[in-house]
Amino acid sequence: MSVRRAVVLLSGGLDSATALAIARDEGFDLYALTFRYGQRHSLELEAAWRIAAAQGVVDHLVVEIDLRMIGGSALTGEFEVPEGRSFEEMESGIPVTYVPARNTIFLSFALGWAEVLEASDVFAGVNAADYAGYPDCRREYVEAYERMANLATKAAVEGRQFRIHTPLIRMAKSEIIRRGIELGVPYELTSSCYNPSAEGEACGVCDSCRIRWQGFLDAGSRDPIRYRANVEVEA
Amino acid sequence: MSVRRAVVLLSGGLDSATALAIARDEGFDLYALTFRYGQRHSLELEAAWRIAAAQGVVDHLVVEIDLRMIGGSALTGEFEVPEGRSFEEMESGIPVTYVPARNTIFLSFALGWAEVLEASDVFAGVNAADYAGYPDCRREYVEAYERMANLATKAAVEGRQFRIHTPLIRMAKSEIIRRGIELGVPYELTSSCYNPSAEGEACGVCDSCRIRWQGFLDAGSRDPIRYRANVEVEA
Repeated sequence: MSVRRAVVLLSGGLDSATALAIARDEGFDLYALTFRYGQRHSLELEAAWRIAAAQGVVDHLVVEIDLRMIGGSALTGEFEVPEGRSFEEMESGIPVTYVPARNTIFLSFALGWAEVLEASDVFAGVNAADYAGYPDCRREYVEAYERMANLATKAAVEGRQFRIHTPLIRMAKSEIIRRGIELGVPYELTSSCYNPSAEGEACGVCDSCRIRWQGFLDAGSRDPIRYRANVEVEA
Repeated sequence: MSVRRAVVLLSGGLDSATALAIARDEGFDLYALTFRYGQRHSLELEAAWRIAAAQGVVDHLVVEIDLRMIGGSALTGEFEVPEGRSFEEMESGIPVTYVPARNTIFLSFALGWAEVLEASDVFAGVNAADYAGYPDCRREYVEAYERMANLATKAAVEGRQFRIHTPLIRMAKSEIIRRGIELGVPYELTSSCYNPSAEGEACGVCDSCRIRWQGFLDAGSRDPIRYRANVEVEA
């Protein structure tokens, strides 16, 4: 087939919005895939819709899956989201915001949709630099997933190779943001906060907000989203 | 932990019911996992409930996922289920009842639940003998999945090895049935037909019915479920 289609995992956050723009820049027709999985708030989903529309995707699929039944994470309501942690604290161990097997589940739906679309490419905004503690953000995990996927599908049996693109995996947050600004990513539409206000303002104190804010600062730019607290950043 | 827990994929069919009995026979506490994924009929799910109850599982989780959004299979309503095919025809190519990435998606939920349960073992009734055409029923696929899973989770990072048991993978249908009869599997509760009547009678002519019927015959036994047609079997 002559058209190059890519399935892009799109959460509504900064990283996946950038991965979407990179896939577009590489000439792919975009098929955005978002999950409603019992998140605490729907802001992230609304962000995903707006980003997909702004970036001209061909199709946007929102799959409903209930990960609360599995449990085990702060992001699906089991524990408190930590606030005000230092970057050292964030780097020690696997955070409570880790959701068991989440990336594996998401990539599996992407694999299924790619097969139906006759697409061989999936883009995911996974990033090992900021989340050293997430096992399913490491390159060796992604490579093992790709090997498995190339044995899993009808497409693979028929000789089409499946590839997971993780263009951000080794980038620092500031590099991601610089690249995204070059590509015109509408960061004002993205949502990263684990604990936003009802009006959609970011808290400024959860791990995700602190990493994001520092990333914009390091990139020599200013985060266009609204925060409800003054964010204290490290030197 | 001293208790050995296993997550068992349970569809309501003959194979997974046998895999459940094998896991129990090996001394595991059983956690059955079933998916409601837009199947044509709910008979299979009712069968899963009855089997899980009869086999004394500790917990039974039914996860709702909508694979119709992905499409691409006869089992989720896109094509007609074929009838009256010979065993030669069944063995040629990948059948329309193949659902893209289905086993990969199912195993990914099993992996997530296993992690929460602190279980290292997942049982799946996949079988390569009858369904040569399903890429995700082959041993090399299962092994690649296991390697990926051992890089995916917090448990694996902490040193616990994850294992996918596929005790039926090389067995003929008749061997599965013989083993299941030894273990007291309640085959009268299982449902295999792709196209049952409203009263729950099996059609007798779809690939799944034909393989099942022949399996009981080869095992020197009689299938205890009800069929609506006289099933013609090959010599």
